Amino acid sequence: MIPDLYGAGDVRIESVPDARLIESTDALVRVTRACICGSDLWPYNQMEHSETGQRMGHEFIGVVEALGSDVRTVKIGDVVVAPFAWSDGTCVFCQEGLHTSCLHGGWWARDGIDGGQGEAVRVPQADGTLVVLPVGGPDDALMPSLLTLSDVMGTGHHAALAAKVGPGKTVAVVGDGAVGLCGVIAARRLGAEQIIILGRRPDRIALAQEFGATDVVSERGEEAVERVRELTNGFGAHSVLECVGYEESTVTALGIARPGGAVGRVGLPQQASIPTTLTTFFDNVTIAGGPAPARAYIEQLLPDVLDGTIEPGRVFDRIVPLDEVPDGYRAMNEREAIKVMVKL
Amino acid sequence: MIPDLYGAGDVRIESVPDARLIESTDALVRVTRACICGSDLWPYNQMEHSETGQRMGHEFIGVVEALGSDVRTVKIGDVVVAPFAWSDGTCVFCQEGLHTSCLHGGWWARDGIDGGQGEAVRVPQADGTLVVLPVGGPDDALMPSLLTLSDVMGTGHHAALAAKVGPGKTVAVVGDGAVGLCGVIAARRLGAEQIIILGRRPDRIALAQEFGATDVVSERGEEAVERVRELTNGFGAHSVLECVGYEESTVTALGIARPGGAVGRVGLPQQASIPTTLTTFFDNVTIAGGPAPARAYIEQLLPDVLDGTIEPGRVFDRIVPLDEVPDGYRAMNEREAIKVMVKL
Repeated sequence: MIPDLYGAGDVRIESVPDARLIESTDALVRVTRACICGSDLWPYNQMEHSETGQRMGHEFIGVVEALGSDVRTVKIGDVVVAPFAWSDGTCVFCQEGLHTSCLHGGWWARDGIDGGQGEAVRVPQADGTLVVLPVGGPDDALMPSLLTLSDVMGTGHHAALAAKVGPGKTVAVVGDGAVGLCGVIAARRLGAEQIIILGRRPDRIALAQEFGATDVVSERGEEAVERVRELTNGFGAHSVLECVGYEESTVTALGIARPGGAVGRVGLPQQASIPTTLTTFFDNVTIAGGPAPARAYIEQLLPDVLDGTIEPGRVFDRIVPLDEVPDGYRAMNEREAIKVMVKL
Repeated sequence: MIPDLYGAGDVRIESVPDARLIESTDALVRVTRACICGSDLWPYNQMEHSETGQRMGHEFIGVVEALGSDVRTVKIGDVVVAPFAWSDGTCVFCQEGLHTSCLHGGWWARDGIDGGQGEAVRVPQADGTLVVLPVGGPDDALMPSLLTLSDVMGTGHHAALAAKVGPGKTVAVVGDGAVGLCGVIAARRLGAEQIIILGRRPDRIALAQEFGATDVVSERGEEAVERVRELTNGFGAHSVLECVGYEESTVTALGIARPGGAVGRVGLPQQASIPTTLTTFFDNVTIAGGPAPARAYIEQLLPDVLDGTIEPGRVFDRIVPLDEVPDGYRAMNEREAIKVMVKL
């Protein structure tokens, strides 16, 4: 059973042929936890009607059920987490830590590859893609936080690295979704001194503050820019994490960057060109980021998850079984839930 | 006497009141060398007619002739070089090495400040702005290369740093003007392994090759992108130096960046927004740069100029006296000259 997207707002639970091994480098993973991503809401809102449906999901944890003959690093029975892009782990880009540009990798739920939302997934390039989790079993209490290593925690971390967060820096996080909240965690973890969250939903702001946000800006647009400048001696923030992707949020992110600062953008851009002004140039503001090489970050972040230093799993505020995934989409889309976990 | 710009193509040599000290932090510098910048050609081509004229120039070397009572680091008679932005050297941005964002600084030839093209210049914030040159006198043979520290050599270096040039990297330089040529010098100096110059004028290409360019791409647009990809295993360049500023050159620069690579842009953008595509995002390409904090780089680059390791002064291929500055503009604008020095 999987959720299939047939068009805007139209998620259906359907029976499909069982996932199975195809290549010798594949693993078959029985999914135990998956989730719905903010980026899943773009097609959920915009997709034109399709007769065939579109598989969904790119974040999951599961148990290895079968292995191709060439897989070496995972064993049957291992509890594994998959990053939101699969990759061989050996190509020149993987070696550089940019697994999202893997020469032999790709994305879940596209080009005939299974989606992460479903009962089982064929994992290509299993040695490169999967990370074995040192946990007691698939119901370990750390599962929510471990599941965020698939995407949102790695993505928040990527935004922070791209924005050059470091000790003593002033950081602004644009967006109070799960990625923005994980961006707050990442900024604090990297030693930021001041962390300003731009958002306006009370439950999310409260969580951001628990994660380490020191200031809240609930204004938008020009008013938000003015408010952040007030909070930063008029200069703007050294590091800005753009965790939304809209043109308006990008304009805000660029507008609150301090001269010599950096904007780390991880929100999927909803426009091709970057809406900068010449101020971005004259202020020597760096624009960096893109899809996070989550695979590279799993090992970096895992110890802090295992010892409880960071608790990104707190972004999950709703859990649904597979047959309630359509309502999970609705709840996230209506901002009833920050992030929805699918428990299988 | 100074050159005044009255409108597109209309440079007039005029008599103006003598430059003089105003603030106690000023120095009065008798100019011995100045030059015309590629960026001077933007107003030379586009400025609407003005009744009052616009002073010009932001690159000069001269001899200190008078000092305000608070100036400490330069003496009368010192031969000094000025970077293309003046700055106090003490504010938070100067301390960070971003002198172009100095809280108490500014630009030559604007807001009542003298231009660098002229007989004498009042230098605000002399302690922060000027660097004393350890040379025999104002006619030292190294003058051309020292003069490039005002702008083009520092700007090429800034592009290289913004593009993260380093040992073993593949570098592409978009633009064969003086800044692009200095970008080649900077890339080689920073240890680049392959340096591809994108340009088509034989004299400039020849100089680029002497400066260290290993490959030449004379195509433009999509063809240039394809050619650079052919030269880089299909990946693109780790570091791209955008030394022009046109939309087309920016599109090319972004198009030839390798996944995970960086574009260092120093060409004055002729459009506000950055004409990226989503590929820039998905490839995690960083966009950095802006006006170079040339002041910060003078001391870094000076030893290599003094010992002849780099010879950026070779970009000057024409020398004019002050009264022939109008023809110097014409020659640069018609690409007869790469860069014109004004010798006073």
